[in-house]
Amino acid sequence: MNHDWLFAACATPDPDCRAQALARQAQLTKPPGSLGALEALAVRLATLQRSARPNVDRVWISVFAADHGVADEGVSAFPQAVTGEMLRNFADGGAAISVLARALGATLEVVNLGTVNDPGEIKSVRRAVIATASANICMHAAMTPSQLQQAMAAGADSIAAARAAQAQLFVGGEMGIANTTSATALACALLGTPAIELAGAGTGLDDAGIARKAAVVERALQRHVAATTPLEQLRCLGGFEIAALTGAYIAAAQAGLPVLVDGFITTAAALAAVRINPGVRDWLLFAHRSHERGHACLLHALHADPLLQLGLRLGEASGAAAAVPLLRLACALHAGMATFAQAGVSTA
Amino acid sequence: MNHDWLFAACATPDPDCRAQALARQAQLTKPPGSLGALEALAVRLATLQRSARPNVDRVWISVFAADHGVADEGVSAFPQAVTGEMLRNFADGGAAISVLARALGATLEVVNLGTVNDPGEIKSVRRAVIATASANICMHAAMTPSQLQQAMAAGADSIAAARAAQAQLFVGGEMGIANTTSATALACALLGTPAIELAGAGTGLDDAGIARKAAVVERALQRHVAATTPLEQLRCLGGFEIAALTGAYIAAAQAGLPVLVDGFITTAAALAAVRINPGVRDWLLFAHRSHERGHACLLHALHADPLLQLGLRLGEASGAAAAVPLLRLACALHAGMATFAQAGVSTA
Repeated sequence: MNHDWLFAACATPDPDCRAQALARQAQLTKPPGSLGALEALAVRLATLQRSARPNVDRVWISVFAADHGVADEGVSAFPQAVTGEMLRNFADGGAAISVLARALGATLEVVNLGTVNDPGEIKSVRRAVIATASANICMHAAMTPSQLQQAMAAGADSIAAARAAQAQLFVGGEMGIANTTSATALACALLGTPAIELAGAGTGLDDAGIARKAAVVERALQRHVAATTPLEQLRCLGGFEIAALTGAYIAAAQAGLPVLVDGFITTAAALAAVRINPGVRDWLLFAHRSHERGHACLLHALHADPLLQLGLRLGEASGAAAAVPLLRLACALHAGMATFAQAGVSTA
Repeated sequence: MNHDWLFAACATPDPDCRAQALARQAQLTKPPGSLGALEALAVRLATLQRSARPNVDRVWISVFAADHGVADEGVSAFPQAVTGEMLRNFADGGAAISVLARALGATLEVVNLGTVNDPGEIKSVRRAVIATASANICMHAAMTPSQLQQAMAAGADSIAAARAAQAQLFVGGEMGIANTTSATALACALLGTPAIELAGAGTGLDDAGIARKAAVVERALQRHVAATTPLEQLRCLGGFEIAALTGAYIAAAQAGLPVLVDGFITTAAALAAVRINPGVRDWLLFAHRSHERGHACLLHALHADPLLQLGLRLGEASGAAAAVPLLRLACALHAGMATFAQAGVSTA
C-alpha cells in the first residue's frame, strides 16, 4: 500500500496577499477592527486564495457516508439501517444538507463508502463502496491497510472533482450510524485523553448511553494501544468516511483549496490530517463549536476559534453550511466597501 | 405632545403556530434538537409570522443617523463631521451596511434625523431632520418633548414603509458620532447601573478615553437623575436615532412585524422600547453579542441569547445583517426538509 502522497508538501499561503488585505481593511470606511471576525475571515481567504478580492461563490460540499461495525455495541440512538436510508434522502433533496446546499447554491456530492443497508446505485450518489461497514473497533482494526488507502483516496477524488469544478471552498460532511463513537476513539488516541472525557450524546444518548459508549471507546483504545502513529490510529479506530475526510483535507491543502471544517467528527478527521501532515492546518477554517462534548477539546488542540456556536450536533456538513454566508459576506465587505479616501469620510 | 400610540397593545404571537412548528421539527429527518438554534429560530418565526412556512426573503433595513451634542465632551475617536459624511457613503453604497444589504437583497432605507455637517438632500436618503444635533446630555435634556415625539414618529414611519413593502423582517441600525455615550447613559439609567460598568471603547477609545467617557456619562446621569420613567430617560439621555429605533421597535411589535436587533446602541433602544411597552419583547430577535462592553448587560436584562458572537462593534445594523442568512437557512430547513415518513428513514 502506498501512502506516500499523504506526506507530500501542502501549498503555502501568500504573506504578500495577507499584507495587502490587512492594508485594505485598514482603509475601509469603518473603525479599524470593528468588523471583528469578518475582517479576519476576509484577510484569511485573501491569503489562501492569493487574491485581492477573495470569494467563495463556488462552494463544493462532499458528504461521505459509511457504516461502522461498532454499531453492534449499541452505541447509537438510531438503527444502523438509517445510514443507507439517508443516502437516498441526501439524493432526493430531503436531508438538512440537501436543503442547505440548495439554499447556498453549493454543489453537493454524496459519496457512498459502504453501508449495511445498501441502497444500490442512486443517481447523484457517487458509489465508492469499500465494504458493508468498517470492522467493530472493539475487536478489530476498523480498516485493513488497503481499505484505509481506498477511503483516503476517495476523499482525494472529491478534491479533484471540486478543483475540476473550480470550487473556491471545500466543505466535508459525514453520515454514519455510530460514527461519533469511532470519532471519539480516534480523538482520544490522537489527544491521549480518556474516553470518559470526550464521549458525548451523539444523535441523542442519555447519560447511561453515554457511559456505555465511553466504555466501548475505552475497550477500543485498549485493543489498539499499539497504534501510535496518526495513520495507524486512523486505520484502527476511524471509519471509511472519517478516513475519506482526512484524505480530502490533506489533498485540499496540497492543492491550495481552503477547507471549512464542520463539527465533531470532521474535526477529528481534521486533527488526524494535521497530525499526518502539519501543513494542512493553514488551510482549515472552522465553522462552529458543536453541542457534542468532545468537540471543544479537538478545537482547542487545533487552536481553532470557530465562527458559530448554535448548539448544532447533526453533522452532514450542516454547521459548515450555516457558516458559509459569513464567509461570503466577509468577502463582499472586503471587495465592496469604500475606502475613507474614496468616500470622502474623515478618519480618526 | 401625544405619546399615546406608544402604549397601544402589541400584536400577540400565535401559540397554535408554535405547536405546529414544534411538531413539524420533530418529524424532520434529523435527531430531535440536532439543529439547535436553527430549530428554535424556525419555530419562533413561524409563531411570529403565523405561518407554517415562515420566511424572511423580504428584509427591510432602516439606518437612522443623527449627531449628538455630547460629542463636544471629546468622547469619540472620530470627528463629528463623520456622521454627515457617512450619510453620503450609505447612499453611495460604500458603507458596510450598504454592501451587506446588497449581498442580502435587502431594502436599505437611510434616514437623516439631523447632522452638524448636513449633506443636504441626497437621493435615497429620507430627510427627517429634527435639528443639527441632540443637546449635550451633560447640560441639557437630549431632546425636547416635541423632538422626542418627532424622532419616535420617524421610526414608526419606517415601519409603515416596511409594511407597505411587505417586509417580513425589520432591522434597525444607527450611525452617529458619540452615540455609544448616549446609549451608555440611557442603558445605565434604565438598568440602574453605574457608568463605569457599562462604558466601552465605542469606535476605538483607549483606556483613558473610556474612563473619560464614563465620567461624562456619570455627569449626564447626575444631571438627569429626576428622569425616572423610560420615556423621560430616553428623552433626556438618548438621541434622535436612538429614539427613532425605540419608536420603530414599538411600532413593529404593534404591527406584528418581527425585529432583528443589532448591537449595543440598538439593544439600548430595544430595552427602552420594552420598558415603555413590555409587549415589544415578543417581537425581538437578537442577532449578535457585540464587542462593546455594555452589550452583555443589556442582553442579560432582555433575557436575550443572540445568534452570533463575532467581535463586531460597527453598528449600522451590520451585525444584524450578518445574522440574516441564519434566519433564512432556518426557514429553508423548516420548509424544505423531508419528514421521516416522507423519506422512508427509520426513527430512533
